[in-house]
This record gives sequence, C-alpha cells and structure tokens, in this order.
Amino acid sequence: MIKLNYEHVLHEIDFKKYRPKLEKINAGINNKTGAGNDYLGWADWPVNYDKGEFELIKKNAQKIREKYDTLVVTGIGGSYLGARAAIEAINGLMPQKGVEIIFLGHTFSPTLTAQTLDYLKTRNFAINVISKSGTTTETSIAFRLLKKLLIAKVGKKKASEAIFATTDAKTGALRKLATQNGYTTFTLPSDIGGRYSVLTAVGLLPLAVAGINIDELMAGALKARAESYQNLDHDVYKYAVIRDTLYRKGYKSELYVVYEPQYTMINEWLKQLYGESEGKEKKGLFPSSVSFSTDLHSLGQFIQEGSPILFETTLFVDNPNQDVDVPFENEDLDELNYLAGKGLGFVNKQAFQGTLAAHVKDGGVPNLVFTTNKLDAYTLGYMFYFFMRSCAVSAYLLDINPFNQPGVEVYKKNMFALLGKPKQK
Amino acid sequence: MIKLNYEHVLHEIDFKKYRPKLEKINAGINNKTGAGNDYLGWADWPVNYDKGEFELIKKNAQKIREKYDTLVVTGIGGSYLGARAAIEAINGLMPQKGVEIIFLGHTFSPTLTAQTLDYLKTRNFAINVISKSGTTTETSIAFRLLKKLLIAKVGKKKASEAIFATTDAKTGALRKLATQNGYTTFTLPSDIGGRYSVLTAVGLLPLAVAGINIDELMAGALKARAESYQNLDHDVYKYAVIRDTLYRKGYKSELYVVYEPQYTMINEWLKQLYGESEGKEKKGLFPSSVSFSTDLHSLGQFIQEGSPILFETTLFVDNPNQDVDVPFENEDLDELNYLAGKGLGFVNKQAFQGTLAAHVKDGGVPNLVFTTNKLDAYTLGYMFYFFMRSCAVSAYLLDINPFNQPGVEVYKKNMFALLGKPKQK
Repeated sequence: MIKLNYEHVLHEIDFKKYRPKLEKINAGINNKTGAGNDYLGWADWPVNYDKGEFELIKKNAQKIREKYDTLVVTGIGGSYLGARAAIEAINGLMPQKGVEIIFLGHTFSPTLTAQTLDYLKTRNFAINVISKSGTTTETSIAFRLLKKLLIAKVGKKKASEAIFATTDAKTGALRKLATQNGYTTFTLPSDIGGRYSVLTAVGLLPLAVAGINIDELMAGALKARAESYQNLDHDVYKYAVIRDTLYRKGYKSELYVVYEPQYTMINEWLKQLYGESEGKEKKGLFPSSVSFSTDLHSLGQFIQEGSPILFETTLFVDNPNQDVDVPFENEDLDELNYLAGKGLGFVNKQAFQGTLAAHVKDGGVPNLVFTTNKLDAYTLGYMFYFFMRSCAVSAYLLDINPFNQPGVEVYKKNMFALLGKPKQK
Repeated sequence: MIKLNYEHVLHEIDFKKYRPKLEKINAGINNKTGAGNDYLGWADWPVNYDKGEFELIKKNAQKIREKYDTLVVTGIGGSYLGARAAIEAINGLMPQKGVEIIFLGHTFSPTLTAQTLDYLKTRNFAINVISKSGTTTETSIAFRLLKKLLIAKVGKKKASEAIFATTDAKTGALRKLATQNGYTTFTLPSDIGGRYSVLTAVGLLPLAVAGINIDELMAGALKARAESYQNLDHDVYKYAVIRDTLYRKGYKSELYVVYEPQYTMINEWLKQLYGESEGKEKKGLFPSSVSFSTDLHSLGQFIQEGSPILFETTLFVDNPNQDVDVPFENEDLDELNYLAGKGLGFVNKQAFQGTLAAHVKDGGVPNLVFTTNKLDAYTLGYMFYFFMRSCAVSAYLLDINPFNQPGVEVYKKNMFALLGKPKQK
C-alpha cells in the first residue's frame, strides 16, 4: 500500500469545498454515468475480472516459462507501459534468471527493430502480441516481422503455438488472425481503454511470465478499490484535490520523482495515464519525470532555482528489493568511511530527505510524497488501481472526459496520407 | 552536421534586434571575459585539446578492447550522460559485439548496484572512474564497491592495471588514489565543467572503447567551432535567439523530441546542459523530452490538445544506422501490404512529417527541427559543440552565468547532515 504525505504542499487545500463535486464525480464512476462511461470497466475490474481467464493466463505463463527462454511483448502505449513498469520495478534492470522479457512494437525505429530481430535469431522465443484492433501500425509491423522470423526458425505450426494474442473478444484483425492460425488468445475488455488496462490480460500475461505473483497484484488492486469505493476522505481523492488546487494556482507541470532507476517506467506509465486523460481542451498539468539522485545532477539545479512552474510528486520505497553496504577502506582518501557498514538503501533515503527539504524549504517547490514499505506485486496492484481511479477523478474535476484521446488521431491521419494508406474497405 | 529549420516556429523572430547582444556575448566567449570565464575552456577545446593525451586515450582504449570484455564507466551528471548518449546513439540499445559498456556510479540505487555487482562477478571487467574531486558520493561509493569486487577477483596488482581514472590534473582524492595505486590517469581540465566535458577524456575514453571513431568526433567539433566562431548568422545563434524569444513569449517548457529510442540519452544530455546552465534566479525554460513514435501513444494527446505551455525541438536523423523492410503477407488482415517492401526508416520519416504537421497546424505548438543526414561520430562531435556553444549564448541572453550550479549544493548539504558526514579537515 502507498500512503500520501502532503505536509510539504505549501498551499492551503480546501478539501471541504471539493466535497460536493467529489460526491457527484464518484457517483458517476460507481453508477457508470460519468462522461465516457463506456470505458469505466476498470473501476470494478478487481471484483469482476474473469476468473476463468485468469487461471488460463497463469497456466499459459507457466507453459511459456517451461518452453521458451524469451518472451517478446509486442504492443504500444497502454499495451506496453504498464507491463514494462511492473516487470522492471520488481525484477530490476539487469539480466535475470528465468524468461527474458523483450519489448517491441512500441516504435518504428528501424535500428532498434533490426537489432532486436538480430538478437532474437539466437533466442528460443514466444510472442505476446497486444492490440485491440490488430491494426495499430507500430505493433502490426513488428508482429509481421517477428512472425516471419519465428516461422523461418521453427516452422508455421510451432510458430502458431508460440504466439499469444491479447485482443478484442470478437472483432478486429488480430482476432481473425488468431482464429485462422490457432493462436492462444486472451481478452482486452471492450469497456477498458489502453491506459487503464494494466490489470487485464494486457499486463497479467507478461507479468506472470516474468515470475510476478499476479494473485497478489489483483489482491492489492481489490484492496485499493474496497478502500476508495465510498470513502471520499481516501488518499485517492485527496491526491486529485491537491493537484487540482495546484493546477488552478498556476503550476504548469507535475514532476514525477522516483529514487531508483528501475522505477523510471512507473513514471512513464503515470505520464500516459495523466497526459492522455487530462490533456484536452488546452487544459491539464504537463506530466514530466525524473529519477533521483541521478537527475539531481542534471535537472536538480532547475528544480531548485529555475522557473517556478513545477511541483513534485515523489514515490519513495522504504525497503529496497536488494541492498549492499558501503565497504570500509584503511586509507580514507575519498572520505567515505563514515558510511562504512551502512546500506545504500540508508544513504538513498537520506538523499531523499535532504532533497525534499532543499526543494521545499529553499526552493519553494510544493512536494507530494507517496511512500510505501516495499514495492511488491501487492503494492503495485494497489498503486495501479489507486492512480487510475484518482486520475479519472482529476480529469472529471477539469470537466474533461478521462477516457477518450481525440488528439492522438491527428498525426495518424497525416501519417497515413503521407504513407499512401488506402481508404478502409 | 545538423541543420536548423525554423519555419514552423509560429512567431515572428526579430534576429536583428538581438544582434548587438549577440556581438557582446560572443566576444565574451571568444575573449574569455564573459561571466563564469574560469569555465570557458570548452570553447577552444577542439583546437587546443592535448594531442598527446588524445593518442594515449586511443592506445589505452585499444588495450582495454584487447584485454577485457566489459568496461564499467563510473560517473554521474556530466561524467556520465555525454558518453552514454554517444555510445547508445551510435551502437544502439541491444547487446553488441565488442566490449560491453556498463554504467554505475550515477545512482545510490541499492537494487541496481547490487544487481550490477552480481552481474560483474562473471565478467572480465575494467573500470573507468570519472570524478574531478574523487569525493562525489554516488561515484565514490560505486568505485569502492567495484574496486573491492575486482581485487577479490584478480588481486590488487591486476586490479590497479584495470582501473583508468579521469580526474583533475593535480588535486583531489582520486588523483591521490591513482598516484598511490598506479592507475592509468587522464585529465579533466580545470577550466571545463562537467556538462561541457563530453569532448574531453571524460567522453573520449569510453567512446573509443566502444569502438567509436574519436578522431571523427573531434573533427566534427572543430568544424562546428570554425563555423560558429565569428559568424553570428550561424544556427548556433539563431537557435539561441528563437528559444529566448519563445521563452519571453511565455512558453514554459522546451520539449526535446527524438524519433528512435537510442537517441533518448541525447535528450538527457541536453536536459542537463540547459537545465543546469539556465535554471537559476527563477528563470529558464524547463527542459523535458519524449521519444516518438512511442510517446505519441502517451504524451501525444497532451502535446496536441493540452495546456499550451510547450514548444518542441526535434532532432530527426534522415538515414538510420540500420533498416528493415515491412514484409508482404498473402492475407492482408492487418492491412499493411500497402507498406510491403518499404523500410521502417521510410515509415518513421512519414510519422515525423505527419506529427510535425499535426502539432504545428492543428495543435498550434511551435516546432524547431534539427535534421541530419546520418548520426555518426562526426555529426555527434559537431552537435555536442553546437549545443554547448548555443547553450552558453542562451544563458547569457538571460543574464545568467552558464557555468555555475549553486542550487545543486543545497540538497547535498542537507544530505550530508542527515548522513552524519564529518566536517572536512
């Protein structure tokens, strides 16, 4: 579980004033009457999810773990960020025992695509292709290339056995492809949009293959839902009210802060969630991010003394997944012996406390701090649900439909015209 | 070489008005009389650099390539970002033939540190530790740990042979350590600050070990200096004038945009350069970044239709390092056959053009576009120098000393107090 500390927010927050609005907004979520209500499926998902499919996901994940050394997760946006965020947060950034998870289909990059295909020539890999329609350009191109390589390596039959498709239950190109070729399939529910889909098969299959306990993940999400369903004093709503207040006071960007590099993709997940949910009608906080202490040596100066347009939202994990002590040296030329025998986790925590004080007291930068004891599957499940619900509330506070993304279509229309895409039949 | 296109900037730019200011600023750089002139060493570096040391760097890089399978580059901020940006830009993100370059010392992360040390147990590694003082906390802790592991693996003598220290020519803890233990050393010039140091041994040794042609790199930098030294019509100055104009018109953040994931760290290098140089006295554009098309599926919506506080500065590379064609399929269920036989480089370029049109015409977001034919060592050297010079000019246009970073000390002071660091003797 995560806990919000807002004592460093530097502004008066009038929770009482927001109460009637929150009541209306929350009723709109619970009764499925809010704007964009076709996409409120995530709200009750921790209760309503398909238990039969969940067991199938675990069974297939086990099969993948036994038969393959690599899984290529092929998706973009919401079909990419949540799984990657969770897997990196729990397993870290260095090569691990178990199935290697590789991501493709989230880019047109010719170089990365060519290098990944080259790397995969020597790997015994399976594919999890994730796309509601099956016509997302980046993902579909990557899938064609991966499929071609796999068939060349193991033949058509074995390739089909190694392909796992997460897509719409009934319609779309990927559903058709899967049926024709006998791929194993999982469902991307029609009432859950991409950025709210991490707790569906979209996230669950890659996480389970990576050895993450998805029972715990769903238990954490269920807990967050149970706590926040009716209780408007919950941090879910406090967080929404505080950031709305800061936005209206003129802050332009919310800077998400983590203190270990393996949490960087959690920032990226949050940036999609908030950026796509709120960034409409010329409104919204610009979601940005840093990873400290690394970025204290790059953006720290700006945060401390530059244009006062930012507030920070920090996630700090009290107990790191692994730790290592500072060694003692007979000669203390680098003057570090005062830390000898102390863990890096301890040092990192003092860096966090020292930075918080510097940015708040000297820099005048409002800080919201989420802390958690440990970032395990349960906490991640809790956190994913927490931020999805809080984000929906935030968008509604701006009078914005949290679940559409009309602006994303504009560049695609231009791109398709430049590419010479034929009109849809 | 990179070329600036500013036809999509959406505002009148009065270059003439800036002329007298630019003349004064440029004289201050060339005559070493500008604010912070103790740190103007980078300006003539492509001419003045120590040719003897340069040859030694190449010789030692060759030795490392022959004797070791891994080089751990141990530094933070300016002793980390430039080398990583260049190596990833040229070699890509997937495992390569040749020496593997690993970065540590840029974080307190207990998890990443523990996992990296664990990984290195099976590697035959050398260390390049980079620190002017040798007491940078993140870097010094990592260096103690790496040294301990290396000594345990190969003994004290062979460990000392495998350690390459880049540090101040005369003073500091790392210089002393190096002298006592007989490490090979390279110089971090005293008149060049961290974020302006990529073309010194700081960047040169890791790049050469990674197989990048550092003669070409320096030739590119020399070209950028020669072009921009006197010519105030050069893009170096135009870029500074345009971003200053947009800043004064109220834009809050400059969003650096790249179109392949291996260029992400170039964005990070730019963010340190501009954030630390300009972010003082409550001034400066907040430097932020995205990698497209990936992030069009997360932040694209906000850029297109959210709060109008951003302008974009895109780097587009015309010819990718590698390419791969979209395959043909007999059944065209995913409707991609219209692209069959086309390279991903072509598709990526249309995504760039389509996005540019969408953001500028429909979104009203000013766009500056840097294009280059190919991102090789020569272009990178040109680019590094281009942005360092342009950034110094930008800071001077804000009446700010580009070369100090007073705000970075505040969190460190707090952190040292919390850690119980003894007062310096």
